[in-house]
Amino acid sequence: MEKLTQVIKNIEPSSRKIKQKALKRLAEQARPAGSLGILEGVGAKLAAITGTLDVSFNKKIVITCAGDHGVVEEGVSLFPQEVTPQMVENFVNNGASINVLAKHVGATVKVADIGVNFDFNPEMPIFHKKVRKGTSNFTKTPAMTREEAVESIMAGVHIVDELVEQQGLDLLGTGDMGIGNTTPSTAIIAAFSGITPSKLTGRGTGINDEMLENKIAVIDKGLALHNPDPQDPIDVLSKVGGFEIGGLAGLVLGAAAHGIPVVCDGIISTAGALIACELAPHARDYLFAGHRSVEVGHAFMHQRMQLDPLLDLQFRLGEGTGAALAFQLMEAATRILAEIKTFEEVAIQDAQKP
Amino acid sequence: MEKLTQVIKNIEPSSRKIKQKALKRLAEQARPAGSLGILEGVGAKLAAITGTLDVSFNKKIVITCAGDHGVVEEGVSLFPQEVTPQMVENFVNNGASINVLAKHVGATVKVADIGVNFDFNPEMPIFHKKVRKGTSNFTKTPAMTREEAVESIMAGVHIVDELVEQQGLDLLGTGDMGIGNTTPSTAIIAAFSGITPSKLTGRGTGINDEMLENKIAVIDKGLALHNPDPQDPIDVLSKVGGFEIGGLAGLVLGAAAHGIPVVCDGIISTAGALIACELAPHARDYLFAGHRSVEVGHAFMHQRMQLDPLLDLQFRLGEGTGAALAFQLMEAATRILAEIKTFEEVAIQDAQKP
Repeated sequence: MEKLTQVIKNIEPSSRKIKQKALKRLAEQARPAGSLGILEGVGAKLAAITGTLDVSFNKKIVITCAGDHGVVEEGVSLFPQEVTPQMVENFVNNGASINVLAKHVGATVKVADIGVNFDFNPEMPIFHKKVRKGTSNFTKTPAMTREEAVESIMAGVHIVDELVEQQGLDLLGTGDMGIGNTTPSTAIIAAFSGITPSKLTGRGTGINDEMLENKIAVIDKGLALHNPDPQDPIDVLSKVGGFEIGGLAGLVLGAAAHGIPVVCDGIISTAGALIACELAPHARDYLFAGHRSVEVGHAFMHQRMQLDPLLDLQFRLGEGTGAALAFQLMEAATRILAEIKTFEEVAIQDAQKP
Repeated sequence: MEKLTQVIKNIEPSSRKIKQKALKRLAEQARPAGSLGILEGVGAKLAAITGTLDVSFNKKIVITCAGDHGVVEEGVSLFPQEVTPQMVENFVNNGASINVLAKHVGATVKVADIGVNFDFNPEMPIFHKKVRKGTSNFTKTPAMTREEAVESIMAGVHIVDELVEQQGLDLLGTGDMGIGNTTPSTAIIAAFSGITPSKLTGRGTGINDEMLENKIAVIDKGLALHNPDPQDPIDVLSKVGGFEIGGLAGLVLGAAAHGIPVVCDGIISTAGALIACELAPHARDYLFAGHRSVEVGHAFMHQRMQLDPLLDLQFRLGEGTGAALAFQLMEAATRILAEIKTFEEVAIQDAQKP
């Protein structure tokens, strides 16, 4: 816990001064004020993080954190648990959706095992950070111990440290893989917001009405049994969370501590980001919401963190797919800020002041 | 009119067979069915247009059509009319927003003068297709004659013909420049839909409440005076439209006739696309909505054409900016279709059928 406390302390607010400078330039550009919508704020936020009005990204990486969930025993997902390690293999072999989309945006995909119920070959080129082979079924016992929760978060922190040291990193996307993991993610937003799970629970990979009813009951049961303390994010994570969700929280904390912008993806990745922001509110200065998925609880997370998602494409996949696509818009935002000329530079008349 | 009728006749539905083939492949990919949301439909639509499941775009062009509007006399815009030719100059000199965003997505910008109130040097590298130096004030007389309306549409058609012949074209974006042009665009959707202008009119470049009230009154007056026939798109265009809007309609018709996908941008560009689709319903098979802007009437246009906008970034700029950014997502959609492996190809278990 001491190390985590130190990471949290290392997260400083981004530069308000540079942000103001960026907003001033955006307002003076030869176009109606505010006409490039939310990309203006994205550009200014990136300037504040990086300390320059001409931001560029040369090392874009998506980390897909994988973990398994004891709660799948309760029949919350359409897919069997074996699919988690199979998909890890698929990521490594470049055949999955995130590989295709990351390649499209010029980013690299790295996979991290934070708690998959499978013994991977230690030679496999992934981050081997397994805390345990899957969480416990939270309808019976807490998903993990408090120590395991901290360990899962530190796994994410260390991955960022290693990447920064070994190959450099200037834009990070976070993604997830874990059969059943919309269930703990929904439980997390329910625990923080106090909103009833029936208003937050979605269909994950596509369950029917009956399974949805059961999923809501499962989340209700876990919350009633453990009563996680919303003031204590580690308590929330340990009681109803997941190992990959802890890892995803750690990625956000690590990126923020290094002053690197980080983009979260779907509801699982965003559950991790939410835990990070509850632990370290300044982490929000470094965090971007890649997209809004069809999962109901996702929008409540964005609302709680006051983040505007960049995309709304009705995705419900995870892996980091929405984060990767958002990279393109973030790069567009950097070009808007740096390259569009001002009214003065191009000698065009500004709006008539009424 | 004869030539236009021929163009309309040349527009054929895209291939239903290839679309089904694409949808089948998408459904078999190793991810939950439908999990890549609207990009799946975009990929299938592009396959149906181009005849292949491995679509690629090598010649991406944004055409920004410019024109002026007599109705600016009525005080509907914050900017003086002189800004239209100044911005045309800015486009040619690569200093404007669309230049920056087109460059970012690997596209070229071309500008077309369809009716700017300025004599450009004939040597200027733009499409010189001026119908007249600005429309008439539609609160007094029709914006243009029926012949001029057809001429403006054919200007757009000819631009596509020329591009296809001279340098090739495989993805077209449409954009606009014209001080005051949200006013005719709003009048057009009001004329087609029969919805009252007070429910459709937005703030354009940022007018205040008082100017907004006046703008609504101006549109009401034009519609009441001329009573455009919603069954006759040329009548609508000529009575309350604009020359660049006709040009934008022609770009969509031209692209559809050549079997080239075309992306419309903001409310002006989409007003043009709407006229094209009212003239030739099959044009919709080739048309994509780049984004949803903050202009109220824009969503009503998308609804009428049953198009899902790709982006919703609170833009209100035009020029083709939202279309250019949508190119990236369309290219992502092509990669999704072509490159993501199927469950069978990667030997992963599909969802358990209940």
